[in-house]
Amino acid sequence: MKNLFHIPASDLSGTEAPEIFEALIKTPGLLVERIISRGQVTPEGEWYDQELDEWVALISGHAMIRFEPDERIELAPGDYLLIPAHRRHRVEYTSVDPACIWLAIHGNL
Amino acid sequence: MKNLFHIPASDLSGTEAPEIFEALIKTPGLLVERIISRGQVTPEGEWYDQELDEWVALISGHAMIRFEPDERIELAPGDYLLIPAHRRHRVEYTSVDPACIWLAIHGNL
Repeated sequence: MKNLFHIPASDLSGTEAPEIFEALIKTPGLLVERIISRGQVTPEGEWYDQELDEWVALISGHAMIRFEPDERIELAPGDYLLIPAHRRHRVEYTSVDPACIWLAIHGNL
Repeated sequence: MKNLFHIPASDLSGTEAPEIFEALIKTPGLLVERIISRGQVTPEGEWYDQELDEWVALISGHAMIRFEPDERIELAPGDYLLIPAHRRHRVEYTSVDPACIWLAIHGNL
């Protein structure tokens, strides 16, 4: 049985583990993915500016998303929000332990 | 901030609280919903036979789904699976405390 909270042991090794993107559902108009972040943030000075809407839930860990120019949203486990296409944002904090586990849905929502 | 794990206090009152269906995303081809079950099961002798595929994750609680004729799948928090359209199934158990919180995605997946 696949489990959203399960983090493969090999992914925990090392201090430089990369962010993990795992497609759960992929169709021409829809992508549902699980993302595991452990301290990764959007590079300094960069913003996400996405073609599609994104519904995102944090199901484990703590994180902070900043919307342009200066609206900061803190996320606790279970928090979710819709990020409309082209709403510029960046991830400014993700907890390492517990790791951040995101469930993201990309599409025309 | 909306939270997947948050159960409104009013929904906890009484012993006959109904199952709760809450649409999180609804477009012509996609429905993402949160379902809260506390002991509800599919009525005796009935099966779900759905037109659309359903991806479903249990994010809290414990449950059992039975596929026709007799394949039983136990679900723990975080477990997820894809139920193809017309794969007949029924929910045979949902825990009351903790409540079962499901995240379900319906569409052509």
